[in-house]
Order: sequence, then structure tokens, then C-alpha cells
Amino acid sequence: MITPLIKVRNLLSKNPSAGGFDAILISSVSNIIYFTNYSGFSKDEREAYLFITKNQQYILTDGRYTAAVKTLIPDFKLIEISSKFSFEKALKNLTKKHKIKKVGFEGKNISFLEHKKLLKCFDDSNHRDLDSLRSVKTSDEILKIEKACELGDKTFKYILKEIKLGVSEKELAVKIELFIKQNLADISFPPIVAFGANSAIPHHQVTNSKLANNQIVLLDFGVKLDNYCSDMTRTVFFGSAKAEFRRIYEIVLTSQQKAIQQFNNLTKRQLEKGIKASEIDKIARNYIISKGYSTIPHSLGHGIGLEVHEGPHLSPKSKDILKEGMVFSIEPGIYLPAEALALPEPLAKRRSAKEGIPNFGGVRIEDLAVLEKNKLRLLTHSPKNLIEL
Amino acid sequence: MITPLIKVRNLLSKNPSAGGFDAILISSVSNIIYFTNYSGFSKDEREAYLFITKNQQYILTDGRYTAAVKTLIPDFKLIEISSKFSFEKALKNLTKKHKIKKVGFEGKNISFLEHKKLLKCFDDSNHRDLDSLRSVKTSDEILKIEKACELGDKTFKYILKEIKLGVSEKELAVKIELFIKQNLADISFPPIVAFGANSAIPHHQVTNSKLANNQIVLLDFGVKLDNYCSDMTRTVFFGSAKAEFRRIYEIVLTSQQKAIQQFNNLTKRQLEKGIKASEIDKIARNYIISKGYSTIPHSLGHGIGLEVHEGPHLSPKSKDILKEGMVFSIEPGIYLPAEALALPEPLAKRRSAKEGIPNFGGVRIEDLAVLEKNKLRLLTHSPKNLIEL
Repeated sequence: MITPLIKVRNLLSKNPSAGGFDAILISSVSNIIYFTNYSGFSKDEREAYLFITKNQQYILTDGRYTAAVKTLIPDFKLIEISSKFSFEKALKNLTKKHKIKKVGFEGKNISFLEHKKLLKCFDDSNHRDLDSLRSVKTSDEILKIEKACELGDKTFKYILKEIKLGVSEKELAVKIELFIKQNLADISFPPIVAFGANSAIPHHQVTNSKLANNQIVLLDFGVKLDNYCSDMTRTVFFGSAKAEFRRIYEIVLTSQQKAIQQFNNLTKRQLEKGIKASEIDKIARNYIISKGYSTIPHSLGHGIGLEVHEGPHLSPKSKDILKEGMVFSIEPGIYLPAEALALPEPLAKRRSAKEGIPNFGGVRIEDLAVLEKNKLRLLTHSPKNLIEL
Repeated sequence: MITPLIKVRNLLSKNPSAGGFDAILISSVSNIIYFTNYSGFSKDEREAYLFITKNQQYILTDGRYTAAVKTLIPDFKLIEISSKFSFEKALKNLTKKHKIKKVGFEGKNISFLEHKKLLKCFDDSNHRDLDSLRSVKTSDEILKIEKACELGDKTFKYILKEIKLGVSEKELAVKIELFIKQNLADISFPPIVAFGANSAIPHHQVTNSKLANNQIVLLDFGVKLDNYCSDMTRTVFFGSAKAEFRRIYEIVLTSQQKAIQQFNNLTKRQLEKGIKASEIDKIARNYIISKGYSTIPHSLGHGIGLEVHEGPHLSPKSKDILKEGMVFSIEPGIYLPAEALALPEPLAKRRSAKEGIPNFGGVRIEDLAVLEKNKLRLLTHSPKNLIEL
């Protein structure tokens, strides 16, 4: 098995003059978990670094974590930081000891102020993306995501029973969260619960608005279990759905199915070579446009793992290639903003005419899938037939 | 009242050649909440910027937030970002339109890679700390923190009843979280529950270890209500506390009381001028050392508000001055690591001899307080007499 350490050491094999590095500094909490399996560090403050050379791996952290690190990360050498021995001093010592010239660091995670300090520690340094090392998952990681998805499905089944007249978005969001916590898991992001016109806001923040009859209910939530995330969206109808809603729902569902089907249309050889993420995005996107609706105002999907959003990216501009072992979402949507009604009349009319239906909200359907050797396998299994409550 | 916008515009009043700025770019989610009261943006991804010039204020975000921003942040001009109109293009347009030369940005929050892009947008730019603008709270903010503390006290009262033989650290942590969520609030950080020797790890990550008789129980948790945080720690004993524990408990409590008392020892004039945070830290710290224990392995306290840790910092090296309206924690502790037993014998013996007691865990007591015109007022009110369960 290719361990994370082997993956990162591959980056050290090239000569620095040829774009390689003598050492890699790892700072993001997700990557620290990826390399150590230890998830005790805060995301809000800089509490630890990993420093990987060709032959040795170090963890730099302060006295609060000494006991935990010694027990739980025995294969990393601990360097204890204190008010008298700063991260910078420790890094200077290490680069001297190992005769390090060029260090790769996470430019997305290192701040402008931290970078100023790092400049004093290293002769030469440059950004090196490490997140992409996480895109292809091991079977162990896939299993963890699958377990998170399983609890996600259970949560959906549970929350359907709680969708009642007069319940508020916030109450449902709290119920989703409590259900997940009662199962000793965490949420991977604050649940989105959107009623009626609010469902037209893809990243709606829950409000106290109460459910009325004949409203759309959009539910987008995820579980974090054993550090790995799930993510799913379902849109149901509270009441008896009218033709307009059914039409949109079917278009979104078909758009998703077309994207999924595309993987199974490919030959074994094409699958082995990898599929352009942008092409999958295009299939779902173009289907929605072909039906007279606006393009999806977000990407079709995103990779998921230790972070709820990570590579690969399924979007029009993505350069990512989808390969065996990648886990990602497929989540087309159609959103008809209520605010369109407030547009200058001709434009509003034009949109309405083009869309052929009133501006009343949105539909999104999202599943997670893993790309396997011969096929795409869905990890979320909640029903997708139109549910009317 | 001095609003956040007035505070930040004060930074624009100085001439750029004298260290001032023509515009300020605000990027951290906490500061975006501070300026707009809108808390819908993710902390994990860059979804919005504020751009403040002398006469105008802008919010830059993408289509997912258009509807929310228009409704909830009407006093900021919305600039909609899309795949065709990037943050960089928008910023270039703004600097051109307002003839901006020098821009201040949050160097702690802007990443190395983002900074590379910003360099192309602005003629001149530099880091400007904005977090310190939040140190002095308005009465409205203090009230919000007080409400969070109130729920924290209720949570402590509730959780005491759940401390039972055989319960696990994780189960108690989940109960704390669920109680807070059921009260429609959020946690300000993952609760720390530490039994026995684990209480010697200041930032202990909860485990599945079960409560046995005669163990220390350390509880450190916080509430987030209306975006504002609380934070408190209590250490109780499950069983009948022995003399050694009582001794340490009393020392930590006295250390905290001495720090609190110091504020009331000051004259009105001294209070108006402000108090050095490092001096308060010293009083608590030196008392603990004077009793033969190691220095506190963390700062005595931290400011709190939109973030659970923010300025002012009460630590030996802090340059912060405590002023009216500041809210901060006071949290001395003594930790006697179990791992000391695993040290080379002479050192372990020396520590034990010095400490005069077995290595059995730790005690921390933490309250939040606001510095008012004439006195320090505690915001957390849970009992601090030694509780034996």
C-alpha cells in the first residue's frame, strides 16, 4: 500500500534544481490528520507542524500536546515548542541539522505573516500543494466515508418523520445535528434546511421561518465519522407537488443520472486512463440548459474525505482527471430565485418566459460516489423518487 | 457609539506615506461578521471579502449569497463574483475606480497563495491587524457574551448530574454538546472532558475512558450564542478528595482570586489608564510558583468574543493593556503529568520531590470577566467551592 509518507517522499525524490524539495513542511490540520491519524489540533490556531525529510519525520508542537503525541504518534519524532523555543528556532535547527536547502510548504494554508517568518528559516522555499495527495483514497478511507454515508442515510430517514406543519428550518437543522451527535458522530458542516423560496439559495443559512403547506423542503447535510465526511442533498415536497415542481425535479434527477451513466458508458480502458472531470460536469450541466433552465450556479461536484470539499473538482474549468479510488459528489440543481420577481420587468418576464414557470425555489439532488476499477459505485442510498409528505 | 466602520475608517485617516491606507480589505469570517453581522460564510473556504474605502463599503461574494446579502447587508454595495468575474478582477476594478494606492489586508488570514494574487491587484499593500479592533466590546456585545455564559452555567449545573461511575469522557462531552444544541445555541469549541491523569493534559482530546471512583473530572467548554462565545472550566472530584488534591485545588483557586482581586486594588485612575495584561498574569503565575509548583504551561487568559480566543492576551510576554469594555478569561492551572512517571528516574524523582505530591492529574478553574469602569465583573457564576460527587 502507498502510505501518505511514501506519497510525500516521492516529492522529495526529485532534485531541488529540477523542482523537487529537500523537505516538506505540513501545516494544515487535515493533512496532519492524514499523515498521523491524530485529530487533536485546533483548526483555528497554529498548534503543530510536520516536517518531513528524506529519512526522518518530525512533529513540532507545544507542551499541551506532549503526552498525546508521544502515545499516539510514536513514529514521528517530537520537537517541543515553548515560549523559549519557537517554531522558527526549531525549524532553523532542523534545516541546519539535515542540511536542508529547499522546503515545500502549503501555500494555501500558510498565512502571509507566517510566510514572512518562514523566509528566515529556509534558504529557499516554495508552495507545494499536498491536498491532491489525498484525492485517491485507500480502501480503508473509502470504508470510513461509506460508514459516514450510512449514518447520513439513517439521518435522512429519521428527519423525514420530523417534517411537519409549522416546524422551523432551524428546528429541523438542530434535529439533524442532534441525531448525528446522538450516534456519536459529528456534522461535516452546518446542515442546510430551506423551505419554499429559500430553496433557491444554494448555500441558504437556516432561518426561523416555519413550514407551510405546499412548500419545497431542501435538506443538505453531512456526517463526520472517524474524521471522514459524508455529504448528501434531497429535495422533498410538503404537500401535493404541482406539475411545475415535478418537471424541475425530474430534470435535475435525469441530469444526475446522465452524469452517473456516463461512467458506465466508458470502456475499461477509458476508465483506467481516467475521465476528465469537466466532461462529466458538462453532461449534467448541458442537459439542464437544454431544458431551458439557467446553468447550475455551482460545480457539479467535489471530492470529499477529511474535508467536506477537496479535490477532485467537477466543474467546467476543472483540469482534474477522475481516477480509481476517488470519492466525489454529484449534485446538479435548478434554482429559480424569488428575487427574480424584483428584477426590472422586461428581464423578469424574459426569465419567466424562458423558464416557463413561476419563480418558486430550487431543487438539488446530491449523492456521493466512488470510482472503482470498472464502475461508479454510489455511497449514499436514500430514495430519489419524488417524496410528497 | 463607535461602530466597527468608524473604527476601520480611522485607519484610513492617516496618509499612506505615514503608514495609513487608502482602503482596507477584510477577509476573515470573524471580521466579516463584526462588520456586517452576517455569519453565513464558511470558514473553510474563501467566499467573501469586504473592501472599505473612505466613502464606500463593498462586499464581494458569489451568486450563492446574492439573495442573502441583498436582504441582510443592505448598507454594503454588493459586487457579484463568478467564474467569469474573479475576486482579482473585482479588486482591480475597485482600486482603479477609487484611485486606491495602498491597501491594508489581514496578514494572519490571507494565505501565501492569495497574497501572490493580491500583489497583482494593488499598487502597494501591507498587513494591518484588524482583530484588535474587536478587543473593546460594546455593551451589546457584552450582553451577548453574558447570555452565552448564562447558558454555560446552566450546562455545568446539568452536566454535574450526569457524572456517574462508568460514564465515558466522550459520552459526557456529547451530553454537554447536546444540552447546548437543545437550547438552540452552538458550542464555541469541542468540549474538553478529562478524567484522572488525563486532566494533566491542558488540551486533552476526549477518549472512551470510563470514570472510576476517586478520579478528577475536568470540564472545559463554551457556548456560542448569536455568534458570541463563552468559555469556562471547572474541576470536580468523583469521590472523597484527598489532602493533595484539596491543596492543589485551593492554590489554583487562590491564584485566580488574587488575579481578580488585583483589579479591585487599583485606583480609578489606574483603571482608566489601563492595566498591563502581563502584570495580571504574573500575579497568578507567581503565586503558583511560590507554592512549589511549575509555572502555568499556558497563558493566564485570553480575550473572547466572536472568536473563542482573541485579544487581549494575558501572558508573560503580552504587551496588551487591559481597558474598560474588554472581556477575557482568567484560568490558572496546575498540571502534574502522569507521564512524569515515565521520565528518566532522577528527573522524575526531582519533579516529584519538588512538587511534593504524586503525579495524578491537573486542576484548572476558568471564568470570564468584563472590565468595567470601576471594577472587574465576572460573567460566569458557577460555584467554585470544591465539589465532591
